[in-house]
Amino acid sequence: MLGSTHGTLTTTSRPARVVACGERPGPAVHGRADGAEDVDVSGRPLRSDIPDLDRLFRPETVAVVGASDAEGRPNTGITRQLLAWSERVGARLHPVHPTRTSVFGLPCHPSVRDLPERVDLAVLLVGDPLPVLEELDGAKAAFAVAFAGGFAETGPAGAAAQADLAAAARRSGVRLLGPNTNLNAFEHFREDLDGPAIALITQSGHQGRPVFALQELGIRLSHWAPTGNEADLECADFISYFAARPEVGAIAAYMEGLKDGRSFLLAADRAARHKVPVVAVKVGRTEAGARTAASHTGKLTGADDVVDAAMRQFGVIRVDSLDELQDTAALLARARPPKAPGVAVYSISGGTGAHFADLATAAGLPLPGLSAAKQDELHQWIPEYLSVANPVDCGGHPVGDERGRKIIDALLDDPSVGVLICPVPGPFPPMSDRLVRDLVAAAERTDKLVCVVWGSPVGTEDAYRTTLLGSSRVATFRTFSNCITAVRAYLAHHRFTDAYRSPFDTAPRTPSPSARKAQELMRPGEQLSEHAAKQLLRAYGIRVPREQLVTSAAAAVRAAGLVGYPVVMKASGPQLAHKTELGLIKIGLTSASQVRDAYRELTDIARYEGLPLDGILVCQLVGRGVEMVVGISPDSLFGPTVTVGLGGALVEVLHDTAVAVPPFGEHHARAMLTELRGRALLDGVRGAPPADVDALVETVLRVQRMSLELGGALAELDINPLVVLERGQGAVALDALAFCH
Amino acid sequence: MLGSTHGTLTTTSRPARVVACGERPGPAVHGRADGAEDVDVSGRPLRSDIPDLDRLFRPETVAVVGASDAEGRPNTGITRQLLAWSERVGARLHPVHPTRTSVFGLPCHPSVRDLPERVDLAVLLVGDPLPVLEELDGAKAAFAVAFAGGFAETGPAGAAAQADLAAAARRSGVRLLGPNTNLNAFEHFREDLDGPAIALITQSGHQGRPVFALQELGIRLSHWAPTGNEADLECADFISYFAARPEVGAIAAYMEGLKDGRSFLLAADRAARHKVPVVAVKVGRTEAGARTAASHTGKLTGADDVVDAAMRQFGVIRVDSLDELQDTAALLARARPPKAPGVAVYSISGGTGAHFADLATAAGLPLPGLSAAKQDELHQWIPEYLSVANPVDCGGHPVGDERGRKIIDALLDDPSVGVLICPVPGPFPPMSDRLVRDLVAAAERTDKLVCVVWGSPVGTEDAYRTTLLGSSRVATFRTFSNCITAVRAYLAHHRFTDAYRSPFDTAPRTPSPSARKAQELMRPGEQLSEHAAKQLLRAYGIRVPREQLVTSAAAAVRAAGLVGYPVVMKASGPQLAHKTELGLIKIGLTSASQVRDAYRELTDIARYEGLPLDGILVCQLVGRGVEMVVGISPDSLFGPTVTVGLGGALVEVLHDTAVAVPPFGEHHARAMLTELRGRALLDGVRGAPPADVDALVETVLRVQRMSLELGGALAELDINPLVVLERGQGAVALDALAFCH
Repeated sequence: MLGSTHGTLTTTSRPARVVACGERPGPAVHGRADGAEDVDVSGRPLRSDIPDLDRLFRPETVAVVGASDAEGRPNTGITRQLLAWSERVGARLHPVHPTRTSVFGLPCHPSVRDLPERVDLAVLLVGDPLPVLEELDGAKAAFAVAFAGGFAETGPAGAAAQADLAAAARRSGVRLLGPNTNLNAFEHFREDLDGPAIALITQSGHQGRPVFALQELGIRLSHWAPTGNEADLECADFISYFAARPEVGAIAAYMEGLKDGRSFLLAADRAARHKVPVVAVKVGRTEAGARTAASHTGKLTGADDVVDAAMRQFGVIRVDSLDELQDTAALLARARPPKAPGVAVYSISGGTGAHFADLATAAGLPLPGLSAAKQDELHQWIPEYLSVANPVDCGGHPVGDERGRKIIDALLDDPSVGVLICPVPGPFPPMSDRLVRDLVAAAERTDKLVCVVWGSPVGTEDAYRTTLLGSSRVATFRTFSNCITAVRAYLAHHRFTDAYRSPFDTAPRTPSPSARKAQELMRPGEQLSEHAAKQLLRAYGIRVPREQLVTSAAAAVRAAGLVGYPVVMKASGPQLAHKTELGLIKIGLTSASQVRDAYRELTDIARYEGLPLDGILVCQLVGRGVEMVVGISPDSLFGPTVTVGLGGALVEVLHDTAVAVPPFGEHHARAMLTELRGRALLDGVRGAPPADVDALVETVLRVQRMSLELGGALAELDINPLVVLERGQGAVALDALAFCH
Repeated sequence: MLGSTHGTLTTTSRPARVVACGERPGPAVHGRADGAEDVDVSGRPLRSDIPDLDRLFRPETVAVVGASDAEGRPNTGITRQLLAWSERVGARLHPVHPTRTSVFGLPCHPSVRDLPERVDLAVLLVGDPLPVLEELDGAKAAFAVAFAGGFAETGPAGAAAQADLAAAARRSGVRLLGPNTNLNAFEHFREDLDGPAIALITQSGHQGRPVFALQELGIRLSHWAPTGNEADLECADFISYFAARPEVGAIAAYMEGLKDGRSFLLAADRAARHKVPVVAVKVGRTEAGARTAASHTGKLTGADDVVDAAMRQFGVIRVDSLDELQDTAALLARARPPKAPGVAVYSISGGTGAHFADLATAAGLPLPGLSAAKQDELHQWIPEYLSVANPVDCGGHPVGDERGRKIIDALLDDPSVGVLICPVPGPFPPMSDRLVRDLVAAAERTDKLVCVVWGSPVGTEDAYRTTLLGSSRVATFRTFSNCITAVRAYLAHHRFTDAYRSPFDTAPRTPSPSARKAQELMRPGEQLSEHAAKQLLRAYGIRVPREQLVTSAAAAVRAAGLVGYPVVMKASGPQLAHKTELGLIKIGLTSASQVRDAYRELTDIARYEGLPLDGILVCQLVGRGVEMVVGISPDSLFGPTVTVGLGGALVEVLHDTAVAVPPFGEHHARAMLTELRGRALLDGVRGAPPADVDALVETVLRVQRMSLELGGALAELDINPLVVLERGQGAVALDALAFCH
């Protein structure tokens, strides 16, 4: 089986053309069967097979199954559209229909078995595409598109029918787009536009319209993949394919759900390696939205915080609305990499400059103060009493001479400036027309990014319609916030891809020595006792207190002597949680008699509560530190995920946690800590010393390793609290809960 | 001195016309001198005097000081604009210039002293308006507008010059707009538009342009007040004035700073009483923005969280950007009060419905599920397999018959639905043109709100330009997010004003008996000892532990006996903070010998650290509860503010606090708790009982009373922790810091 070459996948510079070969790359979501080196220790693929979709998007031969030219039939409109498209691109079209002999003057074939040649694409306009798919095979067609609805989006029966379709496609060797899709891939793309293009992927045709319409504003679109229900080909396949197309500058996606978490990660990884930005709307911020989306395309939306984390890990730029998708994808497709990270704001009103700078700074855009020399230079053309520190208030763009052009050039010439933004809330044609012309001309001369925000709600002004939209070098926005969102994404994308190291390259492929020890501790279907859970941690090199499990008061006293006073004593059993609330923990016992009393009391309580014990733990009392939680939780889309957060009693109230989807590296484990609102606790507050963050990061990575190696057996893990001691002193897991599958 | 009548201020229904009388209402920011009933116990006004601005906006006689008709002079353009405006509205214009005898054919007067009649408005186009203001007096002109810049926006010298201007205006009895302003008030407003209008207030002319331009989209604008530096007339005066104008449906404001916190609150209060929405951009989210804004108009931006809280308390709708300002103000100006709080989403694509519902629900919009009967009704016209629960997916708006109209009417007819939103991401004219026509027609027949989101980035389509913008009954948006922001504000505004009770009506006017006792405890310029701070709390009925201040070990033992074992002992002195870190607290002492040892240890540490003590506190040990903080902090704009938040060690890390500006009532004190991220702690977590929230609210209100009565003497108060016990058990201030002015 042939997939893309390693050369393509591991290169960090962008190749001129994807190297994808073979007739039939096989399902993208499954690992290759031909070698252990392609799966990680959890058995999940480390590379995806990337289908060669050239012939789907540029077919030379097309069969239309269910073609019609009878007036009033829905298929007639579609056949007509395909015919016009075929004529435009020079493809051969073969109508197929059981009873017609010709359609729109073309000879019509009774079935796909009778096609005169193998086709690149079969468009299935029939209500039930299954029989046609079963008749087709790879020798008859490379790709099929199924329009029919009524599959997974309608419920379990539809999902079963969809599984049948997918199986038929696998058997036949035909790659299937849909069902529940349409002809968006064969719309009329403008060919007069040049420069890097947006490639569009949508799970709903209608939701892609505004991005498609960007062509009317001069933004080039190269592809549109309407993936529908994704019985076979899925969003990830298209991301992978587009990532290596030379004409694609950015990928824009509208997703309601993901078919498979891993294939999405691998596709996003490929885009990151190729430095191609992926900008995505992903429905499912709320339960209600997730439910509605599921009923639309029958896909899982996934836990939103996990989807969000996965996207951030692999540099996918998530936006909320279609206008942000348009503006961000358009900017990222066309702008060259930044020469400097700084943003300069040039405004014709002090108020506009202050307002824009306020919003931009709040959103994290860096507005460096301009140097005194640069400010002196600007004051040659701008009155002294106006502030030119950045934002630069010119008090009104000069129109009578060349001062305006000089101001703009001086700003673009500044080494700290990579982006120049000029917000124009209101057009005042005598001034703003000249300003816009000067900006368009300056953008032609520079390789830095020039942005204009045309704030007029009217939008029919010449300066906007002709000058700005006519320029392919000025990024034009209609709102401050979309400009800020897009520029932030632009700087973040380049920062991210410049530093990107794929975690798949270093993901473990073989089990560590810990794994075998750990497997022996697993008890299928059960919750482990605290003692067993801690042995599991110890197997992975995670520190736990010195402790002994005892079953008599005398043994407890002996254990306390070995562990060292003062000790902590806790009931240990397979069904125990919330021990503090039940009084099943005794802290700071300093004598044999206290230990004996505690033993009696703990066993009494457990007996009273009817809780079976495997004994009493006598543990070392660990010093003070920052209480954190580290754990493993399952996700329906991405499998086991790793969380880290603030621990202790507040954890349930504040939910101050960060989650990550394996695989991830040390750099990302460290970055997770910066997501915590309470991260300052780790730096030391109120005179406390800084905590051992390295030990915490190390623990997170060891827990990730557990999630990869034990994912099939370990359903959930919760280390709470992990006490992170003073820097250099390590971190100790005081308690742990573990559930086995 | 005459201001608005009490009748106007206390009515909750909107009067047909503001009753504002008198020639000269006096400065709006100061209380009236004619009776104690107009100031609260802190001495701040409870009512504002509202200037009668009719003649400023609709002057019948205008003097132009510095008028010119010489080509190339900036004043010539302004004179020409004023002349055209005067002709249009039928006002008499009198040019004033020291040397010219006529300007544009009108007789010119050498100085304002020579004016042939008293004018409603003097427009001052001179570089230094001070001498002209000094020549003018109330007998010569009611209002003056000063264009010149170079005042507070330039620094301290400019601020002094501006204070001179303000003083001259006060002496002369002329109300002054500016300096650093322009002619925006006298632009060409479209008179062919009707319905409720937007009244606009801006501190920057350019920033008002997009709202002004809304007239080109059919939105009526009635006024534009460009307030500039606000030496005299300020934003609050215009809010107060517009709130009672019958033609004003909403007030839109762009603010860089506030001149005075109290006058802003009183103006917002007046708007809330009149149920007139105020939608505002307020610059200053960041330090950088605040600094730049200050350099633009020379005003304070205030601590942003306090500004934000003040706006929320008085129902001012804060938005971040100008497009949100436009869309929200336009909707709120024109939409009738909601018939029901529910939002129905009607979409021609399941994806669009899912996406919109997701974003709307995430933003807090209520999308009620439609009843089974309503769904059955809708399924008469919509295929069974499509979901019509809300969002309603019609699978494509029916165009061949009346089904589309019936669907829309059925939705608007539903008693749970107050707002119908139809998002149209992409126009497909054969369907979307009919859809838009059906929606416009339905909006004419209903008194419920109909919104359309026209998502095409192109914006030149007929359905948008002609049908939607031509309708004054359909609220039209270009983005999902602005629609959601505006509809949320619409529902929130009506909820807020329907329940609004002005806190000024019940604000205390005379000191409580506590105040005198408290005043005696104040030590000007000093930090009070813990013991003194607690006495202060006790004076206001806030519970503190039983405690005694002692100065010998023997006295400590006696005190412990009286207070009751176990006791807590703490060092008490005027300069103590962070006692825990210094080891100056001993908890849970159970015997006389422990008390004696603790006494010795605490005094030793204090001596070693060089901390003067007024003694050692022997305190009752208080039971466990939720640790909160309650305090008073000063704000440069609003004076003393009251905060409440999570207490204990995490408070410095998580900053989980809510702030409010007095006066506020019990309802708001309770609402502050819902702003806390950790509010669930008060409900009881991990088996803890619910906390005594009533006692916490009562404490917040008592602290507010302190802030009002002691504001002049008490600079800062910090009760940390306030232990909120189990419900019914009260709340106890375990420690307090107090700083005197």
